[in-house]
Amino acid sequence: MKPELVKADDFFISGINIPTNTDNAFGSNVTNVSVENLPGLNTLGVSIARIDYAPNGTNPPHTHPRASEILYVAEGILYVGFISSNIDGNRFFTKVLHKGDVFVFPKGMIHFQFNIGKTPAVAFASLGSQNGGIITIANTLFGSNPPIMPEVLAKAFMLDKDVIQHLQKQFGA
Amino acid sequence: MKPELVKADDFFISGINIPTNTDNAFGSNVTNVSVENLPGLNTLGVSIARIDYAPNGTNPPHTHPRASEILYVAEGILYVGFISSNIDGNRFFTKVLHKGDVFVFPKGMIHFQFNIGKTPAVAFASLGSQNGGIITIANTLFGSNPPIMPEVLAKAFMLDKDVIQHLQKQFGA
Amino acid sequence: MKPELVKADDFFISGINIPTNTDNAFGSNVTNVSVENLPGLNTLGVSIARIDYAPNGTNPPHTHPRASEILYVAEGILYVGFISSNIDGNRFFTKVLHKGDVFVFPKGMIHFQFNIGKTPAVAFASLGSQNGGIITIANTLFGSNPPIMPEVLAKAFMLDKDVIQHLQKQFGA
Amino acid sequence: MKPELVKADDFFISGINIPTNTDNAFGSNVTNVSVENLPGLNTLGVSIARIDYAPNGTNPPHTHPRASEILYVAEGILYVGFISSNIDGNRFFTKVLHKGDVFVFPKGMIHFQFNIGKTPAVAFASLGSQNGGIITIANTLFGSNPPIMPEVLAKAFMLDKDVIQHLQKQFGA
Amino acid sequence: MKPELVKADDFFISGINIPTNTDNAFGSNVTNVSVENLPGLNTLGVSIARIDYAPNGTNPPHTHPRASEILYVAEGILYVGFISSNIDGNRFFTKVLHKGDVFVFPKGMIHFQFNIGKTPAVAFASLGSQNGGIITIANTLFGSNPPIMPEVLAKAFMLDKDVIQHLQKQFGA
Amino acid sequence: MKPELVKADDFFISGINIPTNTDNAFGSNVTNVSVENLPGLNTLGVSIARIDYAPNGTNPPHTHPRASEILYVAEGILYVGFISSNIDGNRFFTKVLHKGDVFVFPKGMIHFQFNIGKTPAVAFASLGSQNGGIITIANTLFGSNPPIMPEVLAKAFMLDKDVIQHLQKQFGA
Repeated sequence: MKPELVKADDFFISGINIPTNTDNAFGSNVTNVSVENLPGLNTLGVSIARIDYAPNGTNPPHTHPRASEILYVAEGILYVGFISSNIDGNRFFTKVLHKGDVFVFPKGMIHFQFNIGKTPAVAFASLGSQNGGIITIANTLFGSNPPIMPEVLAKAFMLDKDVIQHLQKQFGA
Repeated sequence: MKPELVKADDFFISGINIPTNTDNAFGSNVTNVSVENLPGLNTLGVSIARIDYAPNGTNPPHTHPRASEILYVAEGILYVGFISSNIDGNRFFTKVLHKGDVFVFPKGMIHFQFNIGKTPAVAFASLGSQNGGIITIANTLFGSNPPIMPEVLAKAFMLDKDVIQHLQKQFGA
Repeated sequence: MKPELVKADDFFISGINIPTNTDNAFGSNVTNVSVENLPGLNTLGVSIARIDYAPNGTNPPHTHPRASEILYVAEGILYVGFISSNIDGNRFFTKVLHKGDVFVFPKGMIHFQFNIGKTPAVAFASLGSQNGGIITIANTLFGSNPPIMPEVLAKAFMLDKDVIQHLQKQFGA
Repeated sequence: MKPELVKADDFFISGINIPTNTDNAFGSNVTNVSVENLPGLNTLGVSIARIDYAPNGTNPPHTHPRASEILYVAEGILYVGFISSNIDGNRFFTKVLHKGDVFVFPKGMIHFQFNIGKTPAVAFASLGSQNGGIITIANTLFGSNPPIMPEVLAKAFMLDKDVIQHLQKQFGA
Repeated sequence: MKPELVKADDFFISGINIPTNTDNAFGSNVTNVSVENLPGLNTLGVSIARIDYAPNGTNPPHTHPRASEILYVAEGILYVGFISSNIDGNRFFTKVLHKGDVFVFPKGMIHFQFNIGKTPAVAFASLGSQNGGIITIANTLFGSNPPIMPEVLAKAFMLDKDVIQHLQKQFGA
Repeated sequence: MKPELVKADDFFISGINIPTNTDNAFGSNVTNVSVENLPGLNTLGVSIARIDYAPNGTNPPHTHPRASEILYVAEGILYVGFISSNIDGNRFFTKVLHKGDVFVFPKGMIHFQFNIGKTPAVAFASLGSQNGGIITIANTLFGSNPPIMPEVLAKAFMLDKDVIQHLQKQFGA
């Protein structure tokens, strides 16, 4: 875009304070504020997201291939963590977070949040990329389009092939 | 630090929900969560800050030499903006932000926030660096240690030398 | 290290032509040549690996958090693929590779190889980092140390909690 | 541009030895040699500038948001300096430079030069970006288009609102 | 390219196992697998090459301006090395490599391989860029288009001007 | 170094205006101002150099493995140029430069300057790295320590082995 056509609205978005609908299989919902919907972020190396969690809701294990993340808990109680890579022993770094707590998920590591409180929870994520990407592990592996050959997943997860095929049906592959 | 000595607490900090004291000359207060107090952020390229504003309080014009910023307004009404560089005509990109609004300040640009509401305001900043740095313009120029020769500032700001010296006294240079 | 102490052996390693033992649960074995065992690679942004596969062996779904990969098949027939991120529809990019074929796995994407031939297979991976890291999905999630709370994995994988606990036992969490 | 259309003239510019007109409010003039007028610099990460100073002329306090700078004094006597960021105590690093002297201004720091000699001065700046940008502090804050609300600047600079408005008029906001 | 148009073939190439014709002046041949012929490598920071060497064949001294390299010897015996830069004393790091050996050539350093065995040799190079570039020293200097003024090369190589002109003829300048 | 120990002298060097001795085989002399002698440049991504040339003197063909360069001619007449990489046809981009002229040498490309005037010449180089490195082609290839096996250079340069050995003697290998 030509510099002279850029305007303040290219750097602005609203409504991020509004709770979102968590009535889904995971009981959570992510609202991204990235270069996809906020064009002024182009090349700037930062984005944010609002995450709502129903009680027992989870933002399931996932990675951001291009960003580290800082999570700030605005409401509720979350059980969170990330697992280090193979060479570091797949160590699980975990914490129970309350309102006002902050936790870090390093770039590319598998991490999750789980609402262990009795009320809805809300968190805000800051990501070190304007477009960090999200790879939700279970959906990616069992719900890919087209499906992965079940033998691969059976061997990888040490599960019977028919359990894999059942999972692939559930995740819509 | 040796990888095996890293622990979950290196990625954790608390108390960011607690309002801070804004009883100072600017009527605002910034709480940084960066690699300085959260060691797990080292090399990760992201940090955050909580900013409290009294009514009429301002986070005065400043730059982050190493980070772009996304500001999220959690409470209150803020008049905010940044000014583009010389070659782009020193254009002022500005907006009045309410609860739930988001605005972007590109890397290195001078920007500020001003509480134009009648109640305290709170905002959260996400920065694309683990250590973005802060250069508060007026304090840097008039409160440097040792002071800058007044003739330079007089010429740059088109002010009399004695006004500059008065400012340098006020800012403690 | 002081430049004058660097010697040719810091840039050299041998034995990468020797087949390795694939007698394990996955029927595959990865030999990394990275900055961990080849110190001259420090800061150079490239590493390699040799991968051996028994018939029906798999290099199970995994990510490299800090590197893209090019796979070259030296012997055998491999079924390979990667899955794109959520926003791109979790599309599965797949191919059957024969001797002399090459395939690309972009940075951070989940990918795998599976030996669908009747003989051992050998491939060489080139990675765009001196230390790309490896996160094997199933082992990381079910074999983490300490284990992840089963409720999280049950919800994420839409499996019963006792199946999860069985998996965690199998993966040694 | 297609590689085969690139020609030697894309890497060439002339006339940088010619003194420029410093008959303006600051008594200085900057001639940039950047990707804007030397297209061969695209992506190359370096640019230069010639700066002429009348006696008592100043290249007033400014930042380069995307580049560090090395200044080489070709003629004259310059009082120069930069101020470190808040966390480093807004320390003022300063020096009087004579012909043949060199000084460094780190990326994003506020810096200036002032001709304290009785004759014109000339300096050459080398910048670590093909397009480092220039933000002249006083002009940006008081001459922005449209003007910043005077209350913000009054509070930031601890000056009366009418002084601010006078400044905004002088800087043409 | 629009993400939805990307297909598996954009990440695939074949035939890299096939020996290539080394019947030329250097007795060697390089087959690049880079973003030029494998579009899926765009932005991914890695590429590979196959190199065939006749007996006494050489991949003559050259640099990759944008990539470090790891060489893996698949067949044969190679005398290889790189020379460090001036400030490090132009040290020559060299090794005789056999099947299965690996050697590293740091980014931008002049390096070469020479087949000192009695049979053809094959090596695979991994490069830390999708487009590392190749500058073959002798061909670049003596075969440039148009030719470099012979006086320059005569002085640089301490050779008579007519030897230089003979070389320029041989290299086709 | 601890930030509080940094002082203005870490950013300062003098004497770059003084002509240097060009009484050597190439008739030129390079004075580097890089992180090696100006510690404040650490991580800043820029450095400079002064180059003196006797009549008929040359800064012989060389590369900077980690920096692009801008050359500014302060005195004299220089014949300069760089050669593009193999894939771009080894094109020679050349120009005769006079006082006040500027030319660009892109990162990693072989380039040189030759004084074709009757008087000494002086140029200033700006490099986009605090430590760009210098690889002088002829000295590196023929003066390496230890020497490269003559057969390699004979084949690469299409010269007799005894010419190579003569060159190696001249360059002190």
